[in-house]
Parts: sequence; C-alpha cells; structure tokens
Amino acid sequence: MQAAMITPRLNVSEVFREAQLEICKSIERLDGKARFQHDRWNRTDISGNPGGGGDSCVLSNGKIFEQAGVNFSEVFGMLPAEMADKLVGARRDAEFYATGVSIVIHPDSPMIPTTHANIRYLEVEGTGWFGGGMDLTPYYLFSEDARHFHQVIRATCDRHDAHYYPKFKAWCDEYFYLPHRSETRGVGGIFFDYLGKDAPENLEAIFAFASDLPQAFLEAYLPIVERTMELPWGEKEKNFQLLRRGRYVEFNLLYDRGTQFGLKTGGRTESILMSLPPEVRWQYNFQPAPGSPEAELIEALKHPREWV
Amino acid sequence: MQAAMITPRLNVSEVFREAQLEICKSIERLDGKARFQHDRWNRTDISGNPGGGGDSCVLSNGKIFEQAGVNFSEVFGMLPAEMADKLVGARRDAEFYATGVSIVIHPDSPMIPTTHANIRYLEVEGTGWFGGGMDLTPYYLFSEDARHFHQVIRATCDRHDAHYYPKFKAWCDEYFYLPHRSETRGVGGIFFDYLGKDAPENLEAIFAFASDLPQAFLEAYLPIVERTMELPWGEKEKNFQLLRRGRYVEFNLLYDRGTQFGLKTGGRTESILMSLPPEVRWQYNFQPAPGSPEAELIEALKHPREWV
Repeated sequence: MQAAMITPRLNVSEVFREAQLEICKSIERLDGKARFQHDRWNRTDISGNPGGGGDSCVLSNGKIFEQAGVNFSEVFGMLPAEMADKLVGARRDAEFYATGVSIVIHPDSPMIPTTHANIRYLEVEGTGWFGGGMDLTPYYLFSEDARHFHQVIRATCDRHDAHYYPKFKAWCDEYFYLPHRSETRGVGGIFFDYLGKDAPENLEAIFAFASDLPQAFLEAYLPIVERTMELPWGEKEKNFQLLRRGRYVEFNLLYDRGTQFGLKTGGRTESILMSLPPEVRWQYNFQPAPGSPEAELIEALKHPREWV
Repeated sequence: MQAAMITPRLNVSEVFREAQLEICKSIERLDGKARFQHDRWNRTDISGNPGGGGDSCVLSNGKIFEQAGVNFSEVFGMLPAEMADKLVGARRDAEFYATGVSIVIHPDSPMIPTTHANIRYLEVEGTGWFGGGMDLTPYYLFSEDARHFHQVIRATCDRHDAHYYPKFKAWCDEYFYLPHRSETRGVGGIFFDYLGKDAPENLEAIFAFASDLPQAFLEAYLPIVERTMELPWGEKEKNFQLLRRGRYVEFNLLYDRGTQFGLKTGGRTESILMSLPPEVRWQYNFQPAPGSPEAELIEALKHPREWV
C-alpha cells in the first residue's frame, strides 16, 4: 500500500491503522478463541494509477463473536464522478484522499448488543474533514448498558467540545432511522460528518477528538460484552436476534449512505458488506407478545431517549 | 375493500384477484402440507378517504416451500408526491389507480429454484399501462429447467406479439442485475413496463397478454419444482442456498424499484418485504471451488445466455 499524505501535518491514517490493530487485539483477547484474518487489498485509481488500498480484518465463529469486521483503508486519486456530484463545489477531476477505520461486531449471544463504529477523514483539493460515530444495537435492552455506552461517549465528547455530544447524539438518532419500520436501528450513540470542512483552523483539534474515539469505543462497548456474555438465552431469544438482524440489513442496504455510496463508486464489495450479519431471518408480520422483553425493545426504538 | 374502477372496460383487478387465488391453490396442492394464510388490509388515501387495500397471502414452513408470498392489491386515490415526481407529465394532485399481483416463492430445498412474478396495471388521469414479468433464480443450475422456463414464457409472448419475448428477455437481464457483484440475480425470464402507455388503442390486447401470464407462470415454474424436489442435498448445498439468498436480499433492497418505491410511498411494509427469504447468510469473501456446481452457477450469472 502506498501512502500519499496530501496533508502531511495530520498523521491520520497512522492513527486509524493503529486503532484498527488495537481494536482487533482487544476483541481477540476478549473472545479467547478466534483470530482475525487479514485481507490486504490494493486499489487502482480511475486514472489507472495506484489508488491506495486497505486491510480488511475479519474474525469469524469466535466463542463470543459470531463475526467481527474491522476495516482500515487509505485511498486516493481522482474523485469518482458520483462523489464529485454530491460534494458542493467539487470538480469532477479533483484529487481526493480518504482514510478510515470501521468496525461492525455481531456477537453470537442475543444478550450481547451488536455495535458499529466508524471514523473517517476525507480531503478534496486541500479541504479536509472528519466524519464518523458509533452506535449500539441491542436485541434485549438493559438500560444500564445503554447509559454506560452513552456516558463514555459523552465524556470523550465533552473533553473536546461541550456541543459535540448533544448535537451528535441527535444526529445519530436521526441518521440510524428506518422510516418504513418507524424505528431507530438501535439505542444510538453519536454520528457526525463534515467536521472541520468550514473551519480548517479547527482541523488539528478535531483530529485530536477523532483520535480519542477508538479508545472511547473500546471503553464503551467491551464492558457491556463482559456484563452480558454470561446471561442465559435459548431458541426464542436467538430467533428474535435473527429477526432483528433483518432490520440491520434493511437499514444498511436501504438507507446507509456509506454502503450505497461505496457500492456505487466501485468500492470493495466484500469489505463494504462485511457489516451484514452472518445469519439473518425474516418472518412475515412478526409481532412480539405485549409486555415481553422483545416488545419492550421495539418500544424503545420507536421513542429514542436521552440516556445521560 | 372498495372497488373503484376508473377504467370500467378493463376488469383488471378481477383477473389479478382470480390469478392470485388460482396460484395459491396450485402451490398448496403441490406442497401438500402448509396452507396460505390470508391477511386482508385496507389503505387510507393521503386525502383521508378509503384508498383500496389488498390481500397478502403467505404460506410458511411447507413440505416443499419454506415461504411463498402471493400478494394482491387494488389501490387508488391521490397520487403520492414521490410517484408524481417520477412520472412524466403527472400532476401532484392527479388521481391514480393501481392493481397488481406479485409472487415470490422460496423453496426449502436448494435444488429447487426461487421464483418471482409480478403483473400490475397503473392508471393516472385516464392513461393506463401494464408492467411486470417473471424470473427464475436457481441455486444449482439445470439448463433444461432454464430452457423450459424461457420456452413457456416465449410461447405465451409469441401468441401476442413476436417482439415481446426478445425485448422483455433482454430487459429482464438488464433489470435484475447486481453491479456490485457483476451478476444477474438469476437466469432471467421477462420484464416489461409502461406497456400501452403511449398506445391506448392497444390496451385491450395488452390486457389479454397480461391475463395469460399467471397461467404461463404456473406452467413455467411448477414442472421445475416437480422435477427438482426429489433431488438429494445436504449441508453444503443448503449453505450455498443461504449465501445466494443474501444476493437476493441485496438486489431487492439495493436496486429493486418496486421495493424502494413502495417503502418510500408508504406502502405496506410487511407485504413489500414478503419477498425477502426467511433465512439468509452472509459469509466474508465466499469463493466456491473452481469447477464446482456452485462456481458453474455464478459463471452463468455473469454471462446471461439465450435459453431458447
């Protein structure tokens, strides 16, 4: 992989790459059984020149994690036309640079929530910005876990800017929403985009914020895994998890901008669709029993709460 | 359900409704175990008036069919804004009338292909047209079955217009295509839309063609089920079927216009997503062994053939 830092003042890709390896190590340590397989890939730019590449890390059939995907990529070259058309003021032949790390974890036990995190840096013709976030998708709702997840994220946000958490929390609830189900994907977290795009003088400070997110992610998620991994479950809970994973697929394929955009601009299909759960069910008109934990979860997804 | 025929000369909805019941009966007869459950629903128009409704029929966990969905609907009222914006020359406050029958069948055995068929009639301000088609999605490719499917359809098309089959066959290959996989969804069939929109004088003849399609569907598909249902299969074949069903989900959620449009215009979610298979898998970077039947199928999907 060839590194072409357009903005040498920011060692963004190094930070993201280290974050990827650190997260893989932490997940492997907790799982205790399965290991990440590394799949390094190179990209050819639309100009025909080398366009960067990435390392897709997948852990499968672990003791705790049915599938965990941790992707790192650093790509650059000529801005794809679909991307130029979406970016205000970008020329079609503009140069771009993008690096990011993204994580999707699908535990085996339905008592352990699924989680997703993503941090990315994009630069077009000298203007750079950060985007990303992290969110939690439980199958069985434990309020203390949702609170813990949000508390850790809030503390990290607050260290950098008191406006971040309230703004990014609301953005997350709005983004991870399935209108055809009138449900959020999970209990939220944070989501942000275009951070620093209009204020290059803040980019260093935003980079410091982005650099803190991988550690916040581990502190937010791993204790929830440790708390829920010993909880008992059976066929009923597994079935509900598989049905809810169907909603995860619906969101990612119908609405997720990153997924649609990545697939349309010739991104690496297997790395993009690594976010999809390994096993999924759909059942016509499934309705949980009123008052059941399953109904309680769905109720919570219809009315996003303030967790902290 | 209230019937409001804007074009009383065409008894389209009666024909579609009869087709639905006939198809349900034929599938039940072949399955021999499970029965269709009827789920009748009503629609309220955006004006607040009754807007028609439908009957969603689902057969689950049959001896042969894991899930079969046969939907009938007849809806009318004020054209939803999203629909008006897509239709050339349509006003936002235009009246519309739509009726259709759609079928998606997911057999349990991976040796039996999945199939889909749809026939619909849409009318906006006095201008009516037909759309629809049918296609076959095998997991293991038997050329004689693909040929039989296409032959029956071609014979039906040819009885009405010699241009239909070649045109609609090519349209089907083009429509049911997953660019991010460089694969068609299956071995095709026919797909058509806007038939009669610019030639109202042909609408009666096109209605006769559309009326023949349900019978063609049964003659095209059922013999394939009868031929493949006794074939042996094991864990390996089941796993491949579940992975291929993932592609089916990818197509329907990422590209299918009917699905996206239905969900965006407030269609009935459970009826629309009845097309999704009951059980699905995704596996990172699955590659079938070279020369295997699994590799042979994928090869066929990368290079659509003329089957008749």
